[in-house]
Amino acid sequence: MSAVIIDGKAVARRVRENVAREVAEFRDRTGIQPGLATVLVGDDPASAVYVGGKRRACVEAGMADLHQHLPADTSQEKVAALLDDLAADPAVSGILLQLPVPEGLDGAALVGRIPPGKDVDGLTTASVGLLARGLPGLRPCTPSGIIELLDSYDVELSGTPTVVVGRSELVGRPVAALLVGRNATLTICHSRTRDLAAVCRGADVLVVAAGKQAIIGADAVKPGATVIDVGMHRTPQGLRGDVDFEAVREVAGKLTPVPGGVGPMTIAMLLRNTLLAAQAATGTDGPG
Amino acid sequence: MSAVIIDGKAVARRVRENVAREVAEFRDRTGIQPGLATVLVGDDPASAVYVGGKRRACVEAGMADLHQHLPADTSQEKVAALLDDLAADPAVSGILLQLPVPEGLDGAALVGRIPPGKDVDGLTTASVGLLARGLPGLRPCTPSGIIELLDSYDVELSGTPTVVVGRSELVGRPVAALLVGRNATLTICHSRTRDLAAVCRGADVLVVAAGKQAIIGADAVKPGATVIDVGMHRTPQGLRGDVDFEAVREVAGKLTPVPGGVGPMTIAMLLRNTLLAAQAATGTDGPG
Repeated sequence: MSAVIIDGKAVARRVRENVAREVAEFRDRTGIQPGLATVLVGDDPASAVYVGGKRRACVEAGMADLHQHLPADTSQEKVAALLDDLAADPAVSGILLQLPVPEGLDGAALVGRIPPGKDVDGLTTASVGLLARGLPGLRPCTPSGIIELLDSYDVELSGTPTVVVGRSELVGRPVAALLVGRNATLTICHSRTRDLAAVCRGADVLVVAAGKQAIIGADAVKPGATVIDVGMHRTPQGLRGDVDFEAVREVAGKLTPVPGGVGPMTIAMLLRNTLLAAQAATGTDGPG
Repeated sequence: MSAVIIDGKAVARRVRENVAREVAEFRDRTGIQPGLATVLVGDDPASAVYVGGKRRACVEAGMADLHQHLPADTSQEKVAALLDDLAADPAVSGILLQLPVPEGLDGAALVGRIPPGKDVDGLTTASVGLLARGLPGLRPCTPSGIIELLDSYDVELSGTPTVVVGRSELVGRPVAALLVGRNATLTICHSRTRDLAAVCRGADVLVVAAGKQAIIGADAVKPGATVIDVGMHRTPQGLRGDVDFEAVREVAGKLTPVPGGVGPMTIAMLLRNTLLAAQAATGTDGPG
């Protein structure tokens, strides 16, 4: 029995279509167009590509593209002042500072200026604190995209033995917090875990965000388990994940491919966060 | 083989003695006496007892007792203004608003005014966010007291299969975050967990903060495991914990009693936090 392949592209498309429809309804009702201010400092080519993708998606969803581009030699004070202006600007629903910022700038301090209500990346200390406390707030995009994939494929989470491999700030820790919030019995593993395969074999839901190619083989997967692969590695054979896809597809019940699994969800959830931020700002609805 | 009984009173005493010695050294070096501002609104008798214990411990450790008592009918604005004054006062190293506050006051909003550098309870969203991100900050007292107990009894955490039962804001979630930070392979269980005993039996370290008397019996404990009981229940037979002490002591390797286990650690760690806050404020040392 080969696993059902979780179609992240299709789920992401549906989320984006739903956001676009809700944006149109929100504009009709309130007269307000949600807007995303992406902030790019300098000319790092990869960052420019990422930001470009976010801006296009934003426009496609009917939101205002309020992009700001600053030269690489902009001072900390100038970037901070721009972020403060965006924080105060009612036309700006969400603010995303593209990382990394050029050397000489303190990226963490800059991100920290984004108020939680506009923190569509969900990565500031305030947003992380709200998530850890289980309080309403904007959640980081890749972790909430993982939850969206699981929900879309009707994967039961409540009471389910669930393992997250990796404890990064960007994925491992926040997805673990979201899964606990969804009542999973949650185990978090990492490089120090003894007998990783045995721990993973106990999971009905396995989320792999280890950043190591093919760290999860068939021996680490319970037959029928749902496996979410957050890894992304360029290899001579193309993009590969943290999961040995060909081996694991023969054991798992449901499995994300790389590419086309978790990847497309990140921008989709960024758009949803921007809409949620706009709704919360007008008090018509809130993130939660 | 009967378990080694973890002597929380002795460990707490040692922590308090160490804090007192460090406070004296800090005063000698800087001329500054660390001070704890406990804030009690109203006359709830239990709260008065708790605050009294904290104030006495504070004085015993050589720190200034900067207690503030407000009448029960104090307005939200007045309590907020007092907290802001304390936040700005350099003589105040730490601020602790005793909860619950009287009806009509918004306790969460009041606690949120305490800046992270003076949040000796470690319970504000900012402090919780710092913990969740693994950044330096003041940690909540009971969870860090549990880590102190484990360290005092040389319990290996790195790579160790560890189970936390309970996901409260006060204990379960933060102790899980601290244990992940110490490289434990961490499972968090709760009321929705299926076959709790089986999950717990997989743990070499088991922390029980479920708030249900005797929820953990001998069948839920791996032989030789270390068991930390955070429960506290008044019964006709006296104080009891979440662990069936008499049954589990025949299986566990190390075990905290109730009372005299985790309980005494909370005030000890509050004192340490106050010292850490004073050190961080003068830049001589920091919480971390």
